[in-house]
Amino acid sequence: MATSGTTNMLGVLVRSGVNVRTVTKQPYVASSASYRYVTTALSRGDQTTTDGLICNPVNRNNWHKNGRSQYSTGGTQKTKFGPLIGAAAAAAFAGIGVVAYWRSNYTHAGTKKSIQHAVQVLPAEDTKMVIHPKKIKSHAGNAGKAIPGIPEYTATEVARHDDPNRGIWMTYKDAVYDVTEFITAHPGGDRIMMAAGGGLEPFWEVFEIHQNAKVFEQLELYRIGNLAKEGRKEYTPDPNNPFANDPLRHPAIIPSSKRPFNGEPPSDLLIEKFSTPQQLFYVRNHLPVPDIDPNNYSLEVTFEDDDEGTVEFSLKDLKKFRKSSVTATLQCAGNRRSEMNEYKTVKGLSWKQSAIGNATFTGVKLRDVLMFVGFKESDPSYKGKHVQFEGLDIDPFTSEQYGASIPLVKALDPEGDVLLAWEMNGEPLTRDHGFPVRVVVPGFVGARNVKWLGRITISDEESQSHWQQNDYKGFSPEVTLETADYSKQAPIQEYPVQSAVCVPVNGSTISSKDEEITVKGYAWSGGGRGIFRVDVSLDGGKTWFEALLKQEKRTFNRNWAWTIWHVTLPIPKNHNGELDIVCKAVDSAYNVQPNTFHGHWNFRGVLANAWSHSQVKIE
Amino acid sequence: MATSGTTNMLGVLVRSGVNVRTVTKQPYVASSASYRYVTTALSRGDQTTTDGLICNPVNRNNWHKNGRSQYSTGGTQKTKFGPLIGAAAAAAFAGIGVVAYWRSNYTHAGTKKSIQHAVQVLPAEDTKMVIHPKKIKSHAGNAGKAIPGIPEYTATEVARHDDPNRGIWMTYKDAVYDVTEFITAHPGGDRIMMAAGGGLEPFWEVFEIHQNAKVFEQLELYRIGNLAKEGRKEYTPDPNNPFANDPLRHPAIIPSSKRPFNGEPPSDLLIEKFSTPQQLFYVRNHLPVPDIDPNNYSLEVTFEDDDEGTVEFSLKDLKKFRKSSVTATLQCAGNRRSEMNEYKTVKGLSWKQSAIGNATFTGVKLRDVLMFVGFKESDPSYKGKHVQFEGLDIDPFTSEQYGASIPLVKALDPEGDVLLAWEMNGEPLTRDHGFPVRVVVPGFVGARNVKWLGRITISDEESQSHWQQNDYKGFSPEVTLETADYSKQAPIQEYPVQSAVCVPVNGSTISSKDEEITVKGYAWSGGGRGIFRVDVSLDGGKTWFEALLKQEKRTFNRNWAWTIWHVTLPIPKNHNGELDIVCKAVDSAYNVQPNTFHGHWNFRGVLANAWSHSQVKIE
Repeated sequence: MATSGTTNMLGVLVRSGVNVRTVTKQPYVASSASYRYVTTALSRGDQTTTDGLICNPVNRNNWHKNGRSQYSTGGTQKTKFGPLIGAAAAAAFAGIGVVAYWRSNYTHAGTKKSIQHAVQVLPAEDTKMVIHPKKIKSHAGNAGKAIPGIPEYTATEVARHDDPNRGIWMTYKDAVYDVTEFITAHPGGDRIMMAAGGGLEPFWEVFEIHQNAKVFEQLELYRIGNLAKEGRKEYTPDPNNPFANDPLRHPAIIPSSKRPFNGEPPSDLLIEKFSTPQQLFYVRNHLPVPDIDPNNYSLEVTFEDDDEGTVEFSLKDLKKFRKSSVTATLQCAGNRRSEMNEYKTVKGLSWKQSAIGNATFTGVKLRDVLMFVGFKESDPSYKGKHVQFEGLDIDPFTSEQYGASIPLVKALDPEGDVLLAWEMNGEPLTRDHGFPVRVVVPGFVGARNVKWLGRITISDEESQSHWQQNDYKGFSPEVTLETADYSKQAPIQEYPVQSAVCVPVNGSTISSKDEEITVKGYAWSGGGRGIFRVDVSLDGGKTWFEALLKQEKRTFNRNWAWTIWHVTLPIPKNHNGELDIVCKAVDSAYNVQPNTFHGHWNFRGVLANAWSHSQVKIE
Repeated sequence: MATSGTTNMLGVLVRSGVNVRTVTKQPYVASSASYRYVTTALSRGDQTTTDGLICNPVNRNNWHKNGRSQYSTGGTQKTKFGPLIGAAAAAAFAGIGVVAYWRSNYTHAGTKKSIQHAVQVLPAEDTKMVIHPKKIKSHAGNAGKAIPGIPEYTATEVARHDDPNRGIWMTYKDAVYDVTEFITAHPGGDRIMMAAGGGLEPFWEVFEIHQNAKVFEQLELYRIGNLAKEGRKEYTPDPNNPFANDPLRHPAIIPSSKRPFNGEPPSDLLIEKFSTPQQLFYVRNHLPVPDIDPNNYSLEVTFEDDDEGTVEFSLKDLKKFRKSSVTATLQCAGNRRSEMNEYKTVKGLSWKQSAIGNATFTGVKLRDVLMFVGFKESDPSYKGKHVQFEGLDIDPFTSEQYGASIPLVKALDPEGDVLLAWEMNGEPLTRDHGFPVRVVVPGFVGARNVKWLGRITISDEESQSHWQQNDYKGFSPEVTLETADYSKQAPIQEYPVQSAVCVPVNGSTISSKDEEITVKGYAWSGGGRGIFRVDVSLDGGKTWFEALLKQEKRTFNRNWAWTIWHVTLPIPKNHNGELDIVCKAVDSAYNVQPNTFHGHWNFRGVLANAWSHSQVKIE
């Protein structure tokens, strides 16, 4: 927001015909981080008691209701909201423009600081005054390039368009975009608001993950013009890239993105061992890897409906609990996305089939910690509650921390085996895997196994983080990025049955002199549902053979670890120079994998569990 | 076995080259029931300590080890086995033919009775002496008919062939079959042994379910000749058919077999109400319906590893417990079998899509009863154990009672909601649904919800009943009736995600003047996994629409009730006179239904949960 002067409009959401505009008088800019506001729903109701929800900019989990002063914590920041929010909300419904001010106090690097904020509530009529320039027909190849013969806008003009009332414009190199529609239609689109009225370059320089053809294609849909040369400031890259302090990775790990780092091992290496070595375990990071001093590490546990309910644990404190271990498989929701993408283009990191791994984790049962801090299992209200986890990894732009939640009933189930772990396969966690402490939620999708755990909150609500609300959800095949309503879909928690052929590797060649072929792979299902059977075919699914399974002893709904399987089969004489090797698994509830991605495709490319194929040439 | 005189060979199992032959000197034949023996494994080992397993004929759950006298209970019968079994077993391994005798005492209808038994152990060599006549090429149409020009056998000759040493022959009308191979290869084949050396007519007259084209086809594979007219006794039907006392059923119920009775409601009626009325709830009986006097009803609860551990409860006793209710969907494993059968022929009752229903059951939590009889939850050994249920429905030929088991951990889970129920939708259970008491195991396949509950046994083993061991299991698509090894497959317990189009009914016609069509159906998944989404297509799965769901509030893995759904859609203009309506559901673990039966077909036709189609004509 550097381009828009001292008044920074950082986020807005329109509902019930009312706009709430947040104005920051003295923006706080930390050395390597910027931030933003997201002002949220003013829902119609009793104006003095239920209106005026506003959330903390850093931690959207904590809602401030009725304008009353409530605590709000996000990172190291504590903010107090005053009663004027309520007044502003009330005024909003009367259609009068009112500005409410408040001050938040926070501690940064040991120093107490203070910041003034303002909320201006504008009459609904204002929104009708926006004039959007005509969109230019364009394509991904034009991203950032001047197109001859289209309108030109100055940087100053762009800077004025930093909220929905005037339109939200952005620049990338020589191009200008009006992304207002995108922001209002696209859940999580508020994230891009940090570039409203300015350039996308700083963000993309840090999160290179977004700088790709699919995003460029999307962006050019909103192209309105070229950026004038006059008065424009060229972007100078920040020498202190927040990812510079990321750890080194094993060279065998194949990255699918470098900032943030995401990578997986080759599939034939993956299934060599029942326990995946930590250095070969897939890495799924959303943000820069934090560098945490274990001596200063502290975990906060909070009961949201109890004012006094925060308990802090040092690493030493956690290690005083009864030690527990669990062998569990973690799998990214995007595992095998590249295959779904081949069926039809999806949005997301192009994982092959190794965004999965199995390890023995050691730590303390979350159940034990919750019992210790005074959780009463007999309280009948606990069943609807959630356990929110917050990581210590921080978005350098938004200061948002990674967050996720699971149902409290899972955390409290003595057979649920949810762990706060500090060891993986007998070694301390590496930084990439959550040093010093991560959550392990056996049977759940990887995204809920929060790394670098900083805070646990028992709440009536799910985590309100981007990753719980606007990511990691499945959709019907007709839903697109533009039509997706994340609020109506449920988060992925337990994962469906999955399997993949790992050996022979897809695209490899075997000798025509071979009489037999050995096929290997993994199978797993969420919810502790063990694997009952794996069927393997060499002819694309016409005939099937049962694989031999290597797995832990079966127990009812507590089989957290994967099954490694193999089968040696005679190569059919009547092959046509190629084998279409297929596998599919059956779990303990006899759930099966769908035959193809047809009908199961979703635009985010999650839950890719159709039959796995490996095409092998015979020469 | 009426044809083979006073020495009745009623069952045999060959292992380690040793045959054990059981001879009953004074067979007990109750008015409407016969019975049989199944002698089982003699496994090699220390002959005086581990050999000589023999099981009780009525209740195969109770094994008699080492020839020592152990209690055995089955129905109202108590049997004591003497030490001679051990001696017989020992002798068997020495290759010497030895006959061991014992006596069992039991109470029948209040009178003490006694019966002598004998086990004859024959040298292994004997088995090699069997000569099997040549099989005749035949087909189902020949069943029971004389075929010109093939060998003829007399009834006396057939009667001699009543064990594997001489071959197992059977007759049906004018035909003779050598079914020795079938019996040894086919799990559960020992059941047919009651007709060894004699005619199939008495059995089929009672269990008409077996008298069908598929069985005839199977039978003719074993055809060896015609039955001579001389010396043969014609079969006279028994006027006291044990099914004569079955209750009346609602005329809307469409039977798929009458003895035993199995039937389902029409699918459009099925989904009219969230709770299925008891009279319209599908009926799945395996045996005649028992007629139980509630005042004499008694439920035995036994801990198998505790000699003193049997507690009896009257219905009044059970009603003294804290009353619990649960709304749960029950579904037969064979639901939608007729559709899988269309893909490729399967074996089993041809259920359409209404072998499913939803009701509120009321009774006592099994957990509460187990706690009352002294179950210690802290005992770490409970995790591997099973709860066996035995019904009071009795096979009139074999005296076997219906049985099934579930993992003890499910029964003890406070969130597992396993019920001993006496009410359904606020009414007492009808006789067809298990009066006076049945088990309700929410989230499990129907077969485990044992009706007319007579006994509960806590055991280290699963129920050894036919229905737990040799039925209700899934198989790989290549497995046939002949190659199936039931011992290697796991029983169906929790059921996979399922859905079906109920309205419009498959094959119905709609008017070409209609602009819209309303599609309705149900969706359900086992394990308490609720339904997240139902997708509906009018064009065979090319395009999809999300249905509106009617369901109970979602709770984590405790959604036992089904989801009723509907969606009203515009009829596509470009139809070709037909709509291929499809539905498919997604459960809370994002498990999906497979696209087709291809690759999921199994010879028993269970677990039929491919996408559901309803073809509708437009005229």
